[in-house]
Order: sequence, then C-alpha cells, then structure tokens
Amino acid sequence: MTASSHDRIPDTMRTSVLSAPGEIAVHHRPTPEPGAGQVLVRVDSVGVCGSDVHYYEHGRVGPFVVTAPLVLGHEAGGRIVSTGPDVDADRVGQRVALEPGVPCRRCDQCKTGRYHLCPDMRFFATPPVDGAFCEYVVLDEDFAHPVPPEISEDAAGLIEPLSVAVWACSKARIGAATRVLISGAGPIGVLTVQVARAFGATEITVVEPSEPRRDAATRFGATSTVDPTEREPTEVVDGVDAFLDCSGAAPAIRAGIPAVRPAGRVVLVGMGADEITLPMVVLQTREVEVTGTFRYANTWPTAIALAASGRVELDALVTGRYRLEDAEQALTANTDPHSIKPVVRPGQRD
Amino acid sequence: MTASSHDRIPDTMRTSVLSAPGEIAVHHRPTPEPGAGQVLVRVDSVGVCGSDVHYYEHGRVGPFVVTAPLVLGHEAGGRIVSTGPDVDADRVGQRVALEPGVPCRRCDQCKTGRYHLCPDMRFFATPPVDGAFCEYVVLDEDFAHPVPPEISEDAAGLIEPLSVAVWACSKARIGAATRVLISGAGPIGVLTVQVARAFGATEITVVEPSEPRRDAATRFGATSTVDPTEREPTEVVDGVDAFLDCSGAAPAIRAGIPAVRPAGRVVLVGMGADEITLPMVVLQTREVEVTGTFRYANTWPTAIALAASGRVELDALVTGRYRLEDAEQALTANTDPHSIKPVVRPGQRD
Amino acid sequence: MTASSHDRIPDTMRTSVLSAPGEIAVHHRPTPEPGAGQVLVRVDSVGVCGSDVHYYEHGRVGPFVVTAPLVLGHEAGGRIVSTGPDVDADRVGQRVALEPGVPCRRCDQCKTGRYHLCPDMRFFATPPVDGAFCEYVVLDEDFAHPVPPEISEDAAGLIEPLSVAVWACSKARIGAATRVLISGAGPIGVLTVQVARAFGATEITVVEPSEPRRDAATRFGATSTVDPTEREPTEVVDGVDAFLDCSGAAPAIRAGIPAVRPAGRVVLVGMGADEITLPMVVLQTREVEVTGTFRYANTWPTAIALAASGRVELDALVTGRYRLEDAEQALTANTDPHSIKPVVRPGQRD
Amino acid sequence: MTASSHDRIPDTMRTSVLSAPGEIAVHHRPTPEPGAGQVLVRVDSVGVCGSDVHYYEHGRVGPFVVTAPLVLGHEAGGRIVSTGPDVDADRVGQRVALEPGVPCRRCDQCKTGRYHLCPDMRFFATPPVDGAFCEYVVLDEDFAHPVPPEISEDAAGLIEPLSVAVWACSKARIGAATRVLISGAGPIGVLTVQVARAFGATEITVVEPSEPRRDAATRFGATSTVDPTEREPTEVVDGVDAFLDCSGAAPAIRAGIPAVRPAGRVVLVGMGADEITLPMVVLQTREVEVTGTFRYANTWPTAIALAASGRVELDALVTGRYRLEDAEQALTANTDPHSIKPVVRPGQRD
Repeated sequence: MTASSHDRIPDTMRTSVLSAPGEIAVHHRPTPEPGAGQVLVRVDSVGVCGSDVHYYEHGRVGPFVVTAPLVLGHEAGGRIVSTGPDVDADRVGQRVALEPGVPCRRCDQCKTGRYHLCPDMRFFATPPVDGAFCEYVVLDEDFAHPVPPEISEDAAGLIEPLSVAVWACSKARIGAATRVLISGAGPIGVLTVQVARAFGATEITVVEPSEPRRDAATRFGATSTVDPTEREPTEVVDGVDAFLDCSGAAPAIRAGIPAVRPAGRVVLVGMGADEITLPMVVLQTREVEVTGTFRYANTWPTAIALAASGRVELDALVTGRYRLEDAEQALTANTDPHSIKPVVRPGQRD
Repeated sequence: MTASSHDRIPDTMRTSVLSAPGEIAVHHRPTPEPGAGQVLVRVDSVGVCGSDVHYYEHGRVGPFVVTAPLVLGHEAGGRIVSTGPDVDADRVGQRVALEPGVPCRRCDQCKTGRYHLCPDMRFFATPPVDGAFCEYVVLDEDFAHPVPPEISEDAAGLIEPLSVAVWACSKARIGAATRVLISGAGPIGVLTVQVARAFGATEITVVEPSEPRRDAATRFGATSTVDPTEREPTEVVDGVDAFLDCSGAAPAIRAGIPAVRPAGRVVLVGMGADEITLPMVVLQTREVEVTGTFRYANTWPTAIALAASGRVELDALVTGRYRLEDAEQALTANTDPHSIKPVVRPGQRD
Repeated sequence: MTASSHDRIPDTMRTSVLSAPGEIAVHHRPTPEPGAGQVLVRVDSVGVCGSDVHYYEHGRVGPFVVTAPLVLGHEAGGRIVSTGPDVDADRVGQRVALEPGVPCRRCDQCKTGRYHLCPDMRFFATPPVDGAFCEYVVLDEDFAHPVPPEISEDAAGLIEPLSVAVWACSKARIGAATRVLISGAGPIGVLTVQVARAFGATEITVVEPSEPRRDAATRFGATSTVDPTEREPTEVVDGVDAFLDCSGAAPAIRAGIPAVRPAGRVVLVGMGADEITLPMVVLQTREVEVTGTFRYANTWPTAIALAASGRVELDALVTGRYRLEDAEQALTANTDPHSIKPVVRPGQRD
Repeated sequence: MTASSHDRIPDTMRTSVLSAPGEIAVHHRPTPEPGAGQVLVRVDSVGVCGSDVHYYEHGRVGPFVVTAPLVLGHEAGGRIVSTGPDVDADRVGQRVALEPGVPCRRCDQCKTGRYHLCPDMRFFATPPVDGAFCEYVVLDEDFAHPVPPEISEDAAGLIEPLSVAVWACSKARIGAATRVLISGAGPIGVLTVQVARAFGATEITVVEPSEPRRDAATRFGATSTVDPTEREPTEVVDGVDAFLDCSGAAPAIRAGIPAVRPAGRVVLVGMGADEITLPMVVLQTREVEVTGTFRYANTWPTAIALAASGRVELDALVTGRYRLEDAEQALTANTDPHSIKPVVRPGQRD
C-alpha cells in the first residue's frame, strides 16, 4: 500500500513555534508525512486551551517543562488530505475531529480501556511532542474521528474540550435527574454544564465569582448560579449527587464538598495546587467518593453525537478567531472576562 | 400521635369492583383509614394499564389469578387528605404520585435496594390486593411521593408507567449518545422512547407494525421507525447499544437481538410467552447481556424530576378520561389504535 | 401474636454503665421487652472496639458526645430468648450475631440499599442509644443474624468488626489477584488482611510501626510488612490496586497514596483528623479514587459465611475475656501491644 | 533495532498439521521470524482443547471451517528464544504463557478494553490462523506473558483454559460468599470450580452426569455435586447467586436457570446449540441476567497470580503427555472419562 492524496500538499508549512515563555512566532517547517496507519490532516481550526496559555506564559505545566521549541494547540479539527500505508485511501477528504493523544496500545492501561493513563502516551503540545498550531499534522488514523456536516470546522476542534466535559460527567456518574454542583464557569465549566444537561441532569448549580461567566453558565443551561464572594454553595444547595470542580481552586473545592449527599461523587476536573487540605470527616462519614480526571478515553464518539444532535452547542463558545500569525493575541484573549474560547485558524491568511 | 385531616372524609366511597371476567361495577365500600406510617389519599386520576385490561378480560395475569372481587388500577395520583400515626400532619393537602407496591422492608432484597423483588410485596390491583379504581386509598407514606405544580393530576398517576420506562432504560444502561432499538410503541414503548431521549440517547429506532403507533413514536422522539411486516430491524440498524422489547412478542424479541452490538444489552420489558427460543450463538459470541424488568425500584424521584422539568411529556399520552362508572369503557378503549392511555377519574361525577 | 420465650428471663439485668469519662460500673436495670418485629437476645460475648475505649477515655467520639449515662459495646453475639409480636416464635433458642444499627427503612438511603447512611440510624453505644455491655438486648429481628455451630460465642460478636473489613474490601473492589496495601495492623487491620485474602488478593503489604502487630499481620496472611519508621511504602510496593488505611493517621494516609496505580482505589477505614492535606496532583493525574467507610450495609451474610467456612479466623483474635464487672480492664487492655481483641462476657460470673 | 537471540534456532521446525478431518501428521515447515514488536517462542507444552478435538473430528467449529491445512493448539507455554525489532532483547530466555489471540488494537472494542470482541482478532488454531502444535511460534510481545518459577511448563500452557474460567467467574460477578451452581465438570468446569473458590465463593454445587467427573469436581473444591440423571438442581440448591454453564447442553441450561435467585446471574461458558428455548418468565420476574462468554480479555495477569500463589492447581489437571507425532492420541484421549487434560509436548522426542 502507498500513501494516497487528492490535493496538492506543499513541502513546507507554516508553524507557530513557542521558543521561550512569551516568545512565539511562525516558522516554515517541512510538512510531515503519514506513516503506516496514519493520516495527514490539514488543520482548519484549533481551540486555545488554558494549558496552551500556561505554557506560553510560564514555559511549563506542572511536571511538563518546555526545554526545546514547542508547537502549541491540541483542540484541532480538519480534513484528511493524505493517508499512509495500511489506511483506506477513501478517507482522503473526510472531515475529522482530532483526538490529540496516542497511547502505546500495548500496556495494561491500554488493554483495559484506560488508554489515557498509558505511561507512554504521546500527547499534542506536551513536551517533547508538538501540537497543532500549524497547517498540517499527522496522526494515527483511528484518532482522527470523522464528523458529520452538522459539525462546523471550529466545532470539530472543540470536540476536544467537550470530551473533557464528557469524561468528567461520566466519572461523576451523571444521569437522568441527577442534581449537580459545578464550580468554575470557564470554557470547561460551561461545557460541563451543557454535558450534564445532555446526560439528564435536571438541577445544575454553578459557583463562579465572575458575573459574565455566571451569565454564560445560565445561557448554556445552569438552573441556578452562586457568587462565592457572597454565599457558600451549601447555603444554596444541599445534598447534590455530584460536585464537579472546574476551577482548580482549593477554596472552591473545599466549599463544594460539604454540599454533596452521602454516597455522592466529587470529580476534580481543573488542575490546581499539588496539595489540598480536604474535610476528611465529611468524606468519610458520608462515604463520598473523590477522584480527578486526566484527559479522557473513548469520548470522541459520544462528544460528536452530542454536538451533531444539537444537545451541546459548540460554535456559541467561540469568541474570537485568529490567524496563525496572531497566535499571541489568541493566547492572551482570555484577559477579557467575556472571552470564552479563542480559536486559531491556520489556513486563514488575512 | 393521631390521624390528622382537614377535609371532610365520607364514611363510604364509590369503588369499581371486578367480580368476574368482563363484570365490573361500582359498589359502596367503607373508606379506609390510614394506619401507623400511612396516609389516606383521595384519588384524582388512575391510568389504565394493559394488566388491568388483561384481568378484566381473562381474570388472570400469568400466575396471578382473580379468585375474589378485585379493585383494578395501579397508576394513581391524588392528594393526601389525612395521615395516620407517626406521619407529619403537615402532609395533608400535599399532591402525590402513588408508588403502588409496598415491600416488607426487612428481607435481603429490600435491604440491598431491590425492594421490587421482595417476595412479600403487596402491589395494587394484584390479587388479593385491591387497587385504585376508587375514591380513596391508604398507602405507606413514603410510597406517596410529593409532586410539584408542574405535574398535572393525570400526570401524577402516569408517573407509574413512566417509572417502568425509567427502570427499563436504567437496566439497559442508556446514557449519552447511546443507540437504542425499541420494539413496540404502545404506552410503555412511547414512554421508553421519551425516557431514552432524556437519558441522552441520540439514535432511537422503533419497530412497530401499527402506523398510528409508529407516528406516535416519532412524535415522542423516535429518530426512525420500522414496520416489521416490511423489513427486519437488522436491515435498518446495526450494532445498537441496547435493545428494549416493549412488545412481549417472541418474533420481535428474536428479530431484535441480532441488531445488538457486541457487549450490548437486551432488556425485556413486556411480558409475553413463558418460554421463548433465543439465538444463543449470537448472545454468546457477542457477549450480549439479556435481562427482564419486573416493576421498578427507587424510580419515582427520577420520573417526577423528568416530568416536572419537561423532559418527558405525560399529559400528551392521555387519550380519554372516564368516570368510575365508565371503567368498562376505559378498559376497552384500546381497541382504537389511536388510543394511548385512557384514565379513570374517580372524583368525576358527570 | 404474643411474645414467646422458653427460658426464664429475669426482670432485671446487670448492665455496665459509663456515667462519665473513666467512670464505669455495673447497675441493675429492667430487662427490656421485645416490641413488634423484635427479639430479646441474651448477650454471650461483646468485643471491645476502639470507639468504646474512646468514649470511656474522652466521653466523646467526633460529633457524638456522652451527655447521659451510656452503655457501651456494639460487637455482640448471643442467643434469642424471646420474640415480640410478628416474629416467628421458633427463633427462640437461635444463636445470633447482632448487627448493631437499625435504620428507618423508609428514607432514600434505606430504600436504595445504603441503609448505613440513614440519617435516622439508631446504633448501639452511640449517644443516646445504649449498647450491649449488659445481659440482654432487644433488636429488630432481621438484624439478629443466625449463625451456624462453626461460629463460637466470641466469634458471633466479632462478626461486627469482620463486617467493617468486609465493607472496606468491597469498597476497595478487592478481587482475585488484587495487590493491596494496608496501613495499620490493629484489630481492623488484621481483619482486613484476612478478608482481602478471602476476596482473592494475592499480594498484601502491611505498614505498621509496632513489631508485635506486624507479626500478627503476617500470621493472619500479609505477604509482606513494612516498618514506616524505617521505610516508605513506595520503597516496597509500586502500583497497588488498592490502599486501605486502617490507622486513621494522616502521615500513613499521605504515604500510602503514591503507592497506588492509576485508576486504583484508596479507602479510608480508620477515622482520624477532621482535615487532612492530600497529594491532589497524584490523585488527579492517576485518576485514583478516594473514599471512606462509615459502618457497613448488608455485610452480615458474607461475614458469617467467611467465618463459618474457615476463610477468616475470628477466635484467634481474642486476647482476653472479661466479666461485665471488669469492663474497665477490658477497656484498658489495649495498652499491651500484644492485645488484639478483648471481649466482655456478660454471662460470666467469676 | 535487530532481532536478538541466544540459542541456536533451526531453520525448519516440526509442525503437526491437520489436513482434513481425522488426518493429522508432522511436517517440516520454516521456523517463523518475529516481526516488529514480536517474540519467537519455543513451545514447551500445549493443552488439548475441546475445540481442537472438534476441528480434528468435524473440520469445523460453528462458523469456523477448515478449508486449508491448519495447525491446532492454542493452550501454549514456552520460552522466548528471540525478539523482533522494538522488543527488549533481555526478554530472551524468559518463560511465558501465551495469550493466543491478537486483536487489531484500533477498533472501538479494542480501545474500550474488550479486545476479545475485536472483529479483526487473529486467534491461534482458528482458520486461517495456525496454532501451536509445533516447535516455535511468533506472537506480539505483550501477549507472551512472563510466568514465575512456581508455574510449570505444562501449567504455563494451561493459563489459557484457566483464563476462560477467570473470565467466566468475572462475568458471573463471583465474590466473597457467593453461592454458585456450575453445570459440567470437564476441564473448564473443574477450573471454574477452582476459580470460583479463589474468588471467594463458599458454596459451589456441580451438576454432572459422569461419576469420575463429579469426583474430580469434589477434589478441586466443589462443596456438593448433583447427578442430573437422578435429581434436578432445584431439588438441591435454591437461590444461587450465579449459575455458570460449562456443558453447552440445552437441558442443563434450562434446568439451572430456575435455581438462580432474583437479580442473580447466568453465564453460558460452553458453546452448544445455536438456539435454545429459555424460561423467559423466570428470567423476567426475577430480573435474572443471562450472558455468554467468548474467550477473555485481560485475564492473564490474574490467572498467573492465582496459579503462582497456589490458589488454583493446574498440574493436577494433566492426565497425559504426548509427543507432537502422537497428536492424534492426544486428540482422542478424552474418550476415557478419567481424562481431564492431555497435553502435547513439541520438544519431546521419545
């Protein structure tokens, strides 16, 4: 088998490269070629994630340190333009949402269905693996998930943060008539609101200090909101089935736990401090379960179905579109409290 | 503690009594009094179930045989009019949906949360326990579930069949983006369509020979329908996550199983033949799981939340309202293929 | 129905009463009478639990404060000597293990099978409910579980702490070939070792600073032990499936968590500080689940079967037997590091 | 990277080839070479499975038909003698138990941890894939599981049927104090008895018409046995938690189901008729779950730990050892009712 392609693919491509904290610029790099089992994808849209911003500002995220030039971006959608050996050439032309982490497929975690916990995971925009702020990427073909026409180019990229929310709601065991408390109404928070609703939750309370973000939460389906500078969550709700923290803030986590009913669940989605002091007596006497989420596994089909069926709105999250050359602006857009999700459009020239 | 009541409660009440197959008439009986832990409920609306019709026509349902006069009806809603000892008198006046089976609360099944499998269950309208085709019933207070104003009098009664569908979808593990096949679009079938949707299913195919019923299924959320006299389900869908039979018909069950994906679920909701020949090789090589549902447990809170939030429509199911004196008409209304759910209104005089 | 009894039951009974911290003495009190659904049990043996010791020394356990004279003891076995109304009189003479907490049977927690989380639980030796340091107790009949002859009088009482371990191992999802880390080798620790083994664990590492207790752990089935004053658990094991803390000590909890594999479980059995600082980054990036245990539900049948089949040894735990008059000695026996489980024998006179 | 090897590996190897039903003979074939990610294993011992016998006698097993010469045998253990590219050369010399089916690693079933249901599975001794009745086989390295010295050469091969039993007991949710009914005491039946015991089952009843097989079941841990020509299982046990059929016989399946408690499990391990008539009314009114097993996933680590720890005895199953040249005798050994497991030893010359 040989690679297959319909379009003319240039030998080099424009790539946005982070060389040091605060230093990002477009370079020309060779266009990659798909290996066995891989596809080459022309990137149409890439969402900017908080971790991209963190790398840009601090040169690291937790244990992951940028020691060599890094390409950011892992919320990517695009179109397959060529296929490597062992891949059905008919996939050329297919619109896809990219799942940005490819595991080893051979370890115990991979074989038991928890491939996101694979110790040999290669994940976009995580040193030393480059991301999608560029015109073309290669990826194992099964991680390039086909999307139907109902899903826009931007939405195809935003299947990635939607997957974070799908995984979080799965971990929280949200189902029909679940009562949910969510802290934090950034992009993941508002997606979690939407997904909780799509999973059947009928009561969704959001704790968020920013008024524009509380408004966004309400717009996307929260049934009530709380300003934590004014009230404790426990003054508003009592005995929720699940509490999902999408803020990463220790005070928010500590304040939310006492609102959970006996045998309820706490899921920590946002990464924050390495250590947090928790109210163990509450957790123990109520047998509340606490866990965190780290990426996701097998969420793309669900996320795509939710977006395609209109149960979750993705395009409404996009608050700015940027050229590759303007990646810096995209990475700093979130200083505006009304910004939810900036996206980079590598194919856009002006 | 003593019983408490605001309204004047008459000493006798009108009761519709089935004395033999096809023989049903209104009698006056003493109004019951609530015992310790019980409430007296004035019945506003009672749905007619296929089992009521079966008792009326044949004098039996499976192993349950009518050997003495029986009051039919177990889909009941009403208002608490008095309380027995050990019950908060403030509940008088509360609108309630009745869960019609009270278990022993002491056996292993009860204590492990599967009280519906309690061998000492006392269930409305199941010999020798009388049902709710009457003006007043007594019930253990925790089985009289409060309903909010969003739920109408008829809808309060229909929380019962809705519970059947909630239990079925739980057993089938329906969640976000689940692909579902349902056979049978009678009242339980269309409720299962609605509940599957509320649980997050994005693809719901209904197999039903009757055109008016297929239309109803579509109206309530089916994404496609199949006339089994024209095509096999496997010609239309492939690899559904769950197949729920709401028909009880052996051919429908046998035709649906091959449409289920490996590791999928089959849930038999409708009761049919005592013995059915199943395609074991399909079940085994795909590791499909097959189970049945028998009533429900702990479904009222979920069902009430789904109805109150508008995720499920109950009033739209009601196709006829009958006086207690017209119970016979209510029990025979389903000869009209457009009939979905007739209800009896014991308080209605003309 | 009337109460039934074969033996002569005295009108008064000897009862050990805690009147203030450090003040415990035997009083005569009226022998209780079984109500409807209850049995009267002659107490043969009652194990001394750490919570009994804590009430004796401090007059409180967490939020539970002794404000009136309290009878201690909740690990009780005995023989049914009479039955109340609605109980099969043939149970008189039956040997039983007592489950010491009776829930309301009506709330959501009770009806979903989590009756141990019932807010109206009445639990032996928890203010204001008296315990079993006395000659006779009454109990709802379904909480007096029959035991076969293979289970001794002392062992019947020790089904209670065995239940704690059964519940902990269930929560930890221990099964065949599970790798387990346990911190603390007091009575609950060594029972957890035995139960983990009975559940199929093939690798059981125990962390315990006391040498006699490490020896006990080895005797009861630990495959290796660690002295935490010399080494960290992570130096000895890596990637256990489950970590059960039976010490309640914050340093032990903090040291054990990093030894857990991705997607593993942490179960906190011992109660300790109200707040503990946890390594969140480990919990989150590994998606480890943390929960606590609070008593147990539906564990007696399993615990009795394990003890009766010889999979768990209970008699070998008993390190001292005391008369009711010597309860103080029983409550202070654990100053000897070789003491595992002292038991009080209310029927013993000399 | 290049292949690595310590021993001298011959260019050709002796291979037992089934050319038609009843026609099996040793041929010389080229010794295979390990590809990328693969190892070459010298086969020490291969158990004879019922499916091998079926292919030998009938030339087919269900939908799998022998249309070209086929090498039988899939219960294999051996020693790694060389490694392909991308494999740690230090594995040469390692003793291994072979998991005989390698999936695609890319489909939904593979990525959700159910790789045994992969539609592109390549499984030893299943047309057109050759098996292990030969001196050397190649296999993906992660399917060659290391075994400790406690596991003999024969036992390494028998990890495969042990895995069938581990999977069956997992599917049946056997745990501590489970009550189990097993029908059929062939090799899988007696392994299931042992595994059920290792999973914590305390009551294991075996139904088997052959007296020598009933004796074997008792020897391996059954707590009681039933001769189905004399009695129905329901006369002996009532309300078991799980019923595992290891016979494939429709009458055994039909007789076992009524012995299962409400909410219990039925697992069909043995393949039998394509269609079976089941007592649906029992399944439905008790909400019993029925499923089948098809091979296994992720069972080798558990099976190896159980065998290595002595919880399961494998060597005691071996009732005959045969040279490759005597494969025919091995395949017909089971005409003796005392035969449990014949093994072929490819390295044995006389």
